[in-house]
Amino acid sequence: MSTEANYQELFALQHELQLLGSIESILEWDQRCYIPSQAHEYRSDQASYIALMRHQKGTAKRIGELLDGLTAAGMGASLEPRDVNVREWKRDYEKRCKLPEDLVSEMTKTTSFAQSVWGEARARNDFAAFQPWLEKIVALKRREADCLGWEAEPYDALLDQYEPGAKTAEVAKVLGDLRERLVPLVKRIAGSSKRPDTSVLRRNFPPDQQEEFGKAVATAIGYDFTRGRVDETTHPFCITLGPKDVRITTRYIPDHVNGALFGTLHESGHALYEQNLPAEHAGTPMADAVSLGIHESQSRLWENIVGRGLPFWQKWFPSAKDHFSELRNVSLEDFVFAINAVEPTFIRVEADETTYNLHILLRFELERALMNGDLKPADVPGAWNEKFKKYFGLDVPSDAQGCLQDIHWSAGLLGYFPTYSIGNLNAAQFYEKAVVDIGEQEDNFRNGVYAPMLDWLVKNIHSHGRRYKSADLTKHVTGKPLSSDALMRYLEKKASYWYGV
Amino acid sequence: MSTEANYQELFALQHELQLLGSIESILEWDQRCYIPSQAHEYRSDQASYIALMRHQKGTAKRIGELLDGLTAAGMGASLEPRDVNVREWKRDYEKRCKLPEDLVSEMTKTTSFAQSVWGEARARNDFAAFQPWLEKIVALKRREADCLGWEAEPYDALLDQYEPGAKTAEVAKVLGDLRERLVPLVKRIAGSSKRPDTSVLRRNFPPDQQEEFGKAVATAIGYDFTRGRVDETTHPFCITLGPKDVRITTRYIPDHVNGALFGTLHESGHALYEQNLPAEHAGTPMADAVSLGIHESQSRLWENIVGRGLPFWQKWFPSAKDHFSELRNVSLEDFVFAINAVEPTFIRVEADETTYNLHILLRFELERALMNGDLKPADVPGAWNEKFKKYFGLDVPSDAQGCLQDIHWSAGLLGYFPTYSIGNLNAAQFYEKAVVDIGEQEDNFRNGVYAPMLDWLVKNIHSHGRRYKSADLTKHVTGKPLSSDALMRYLEKKASYWYGV
Repeated sequence: MSTEANYQELFALQHELQLLGSIESILEWDQRCYIPSQAHEYRSDQASYIALMRHQKGTAKRIGELLDGLTAAGMGASLEPRDVNVREWKRDYEKRCKLPEDLVSEMTKTTSFAQSVWGEARARNDFAAFQPWLEKIVALKRREADCLGWEAEPYDALLDQYEPGAKTAEVAKVLGDLRERLVPLVKRIAGSSKRPDTSVLRRNFPPDQQEEFGKAVATAIGYDFTRGRVDETTHPFCITLGPKDVRITTRYIPDHVNGALFGTLHESGHALYEQNLPAEHAGTPMADAVSLGIHESQSRLWENIVGRGLPFWQKWFPSAKDHFSELRNVSLEDFVFAINAVEPTFIRVEADETTYNLHILLRFELERALMNGDLKPADVPGAWNEKFKKYFGLDVPSDAQGCLQDIHWSAGLLGYFPTYSIGNLNAAQFYEKAVVDIGEQEDNFRNGVYAPMLDWLVKNIHSHGRRYKSADLTKHVTGKPLSSDALMRYLEKKASYWYGV
Repeated sequence: MSTEANYQELFALQHELQLLGSIESILEWDQRCYIPSQAHEYRSDQASYIALMRHQKGTAKRIGELLDGLTAAGMGASLEPRDVNVREWKRDYEKRCKLPEDLVSEMTKTTSFAQSVWGEARARNDFAAFQPWLEKIVALKRREADCLGWEAEPYDALLDQYEPGAKTAEVAKVLGDLRERLVPLVKRIAGSSKRPDTSVLRRNFPPDQQEEFGKAVATAIGYDFTRGRVDETTHPFCITLGPKDVRITTRYIPDHVNGALFGTLHESGHALYEQNLPAEHAGTPMADAVSLGIHESQSRLWENIVGRGLPFWQKWFPSAKDHFSELRNVSLEDFVFAINAVEPTFIRVEADETTYNLHILLRFELERALMNGDLKPADVPGAWNEKFKKYFGLDVPSDAQGCLQDIHWSAGLLGYFPTYSIGNLNAAQFYEKAVVDIGEQEDNFRNGVYAPMLDWLVKNIHSHGRRYKSADLTKHVTGKPLSSDALMRYLEKKASYWYGV
């Protein structure tokens, strides 16, 4: 068979996997948005059925033979689209084949049950109830890491699933560096005499007005509603149901405008990435996102760097006042200071963009120690509270507000947390480079003009699909490896402007 | 292998088919309710992929072997659940195997394209544009009938897909008899001096109030929202996404209360059937609906016999006045007369329950002639208009309001129309028998008590799944074959009460 015929056959098999994956996404979207309460059990049968089929078809020997043939013919080495596709298909295939079916199904069963145990344990502030499940999950994740293979430490194998190519030691260095610079900044801010009045964000914001305003903002920055839609869920997310079907969700809390507004901007940022992946490569890795960290860089860039900036609100605040009568006696500066408040909180998802990264660091360090065997699940609460005191200067009042707050571990998502900070770091580093390339964007934002920013992201990030690994993309785009410099410059500038420190 | 082992293996294979079918339904529900405009093309790839897989798995040789083994062991003959299941699985399997894959895919492609041609042809009142597609579809349906096999006439094979076991000649006899009695009744009503003021239904009915009222009514008659939900679509429908997931849709037109109200009741009637199929037989024909006609009998019974009755509104009219301020100066009698107006219309979906069946007859007679070759597609407009004049006494002003009004033919749904009238006939015949069994229900309806009615339907119809064929079920439940008697008694009683004729 010719290389061309091999490639086409492989493409067809991968197209099937993509169809199955997108069908799983439809089942998931419906389950998170609209499913009737009694329908969850059968839905999980439906989803498992498709997932198993995808695993079986995705580990078919024929895929391996075709990949071997293509590799033998020299494909997979360059950065040209077809080579990228062969390289990444091979990576995915090998990863899938390394995970035995019994481990996959054991993980699914365990985490599915553990999530409901976690929900109750958090509600009752009862770490002991969750502890045996955390032990099981850590043991399974260590087995998973061993199956996938690792060199320096087992956490590498987990991280690599979300942030291909990333190494724990390198990530630890950048994040550790960030911590050294963040802790004093947070202290300086705490010592400032300036304080925003955040109560202006907690007035009456009618949900239908939040929806209208959020859609207007999403449309303005470039989210295409003919290829997407927004629905309401408790936990906002972005999900791709097909090449022209990228949906987001948000939450409208009547007495708090933050969620809907920045939630919508955040998910729209994710969606802009998905909507602008190169359509001509649909169905191949060239039209897939690089990693969770790069994905998060897009959402954080739009949510924070654009969406919490003064120029952005110089454009949108008049419209916000039209939508929300209770903002009418609030000044632009007071409002923007409020949405840029920096204040330590116990809960990660309520954290501001400065302290947020300290929440991630803490989790990353504990996860790494759990995987290395340096920390026992039983000792997680103590270790958590000690670190929290060190980074935030606060005593954690309960495990519910401490190590039990996040769903991730119960869902088996170890290795996932650092991608949030990788996203923040990349967002700042990308934005700095964009300004070098296309000039300062503040005037554009003041005028509601986002196309130059989006075009730059499309050209430099979205259009590449999975051509580069996360770390290589950062270097390729910005000319520098990922570091804490850009993010710190950005956060320090803000601290200086708002808090005078 | 033992019979038990054969049965279990067959059950597992059928469970897979049910999973695939329910996944197709999820894709369809989303496509009809919420899909972004640009996502249709890929959705059709997703749906075709699952449909093809279902066809392939559904025609697997192993199913045939297992069925042969079970039949040889004597299974499939009695009316016991497992025998019913084997009998019906065999029926489905044989039908599927008779349809060659190329015909199935040709039909899908043709009807998918023909539907968009039809949409444009109707908008431009241009039958000539649709004619070649109707010709193609009739030719394909004749081929389909030949593949499926028929004795008396090809239409039998089509009808049998929607109304298992029904014969064209028998249906024609009942419907012809109905026509003979309906035409003079419609004339008598037209001659009455009494006229309802239907403008009371065309006032201002805020959609959110329609939604709230519709949900209250649906809940009251027994629709379980923990196993279902209601969404809004242009064309209301009921769809089953899983054993505990039966959803309906409706349409809220601000200046016309009919759609939402009776649309919701109609779809709730379908949903009550699906929600009350015997859960202990989930995944087998014993938990499937018998036929489209029996399905329609449930929706029509709740929509018309219950929902357009005076007792029903003695209960609900006060609440309706609370929801819709513009009904406050309308009397109960005037309102109920308005929702029972009998008036010939050109459009089937706008027809009242008396003239509705004449619309069906006309279509049934044309379809039958098309399939027999007695009528050429080119001659459909003429034949349509001639019959319309004969049954309704009206000149059809345009094909858009005549033979181009329905989507069915463009979708390949020949043989489907008669099931609407079979539904109407059965609704009346079932209701008469229910009254014999459990007594007059008017007092119950006046008090908002629907459980005795629903329980009777569950016991006599829903609980049987596909145990009986449609015609046998009617006979088994009512002691008589399907006839026009009950429906005519019901319609004549109404005509006498409201129109004094």
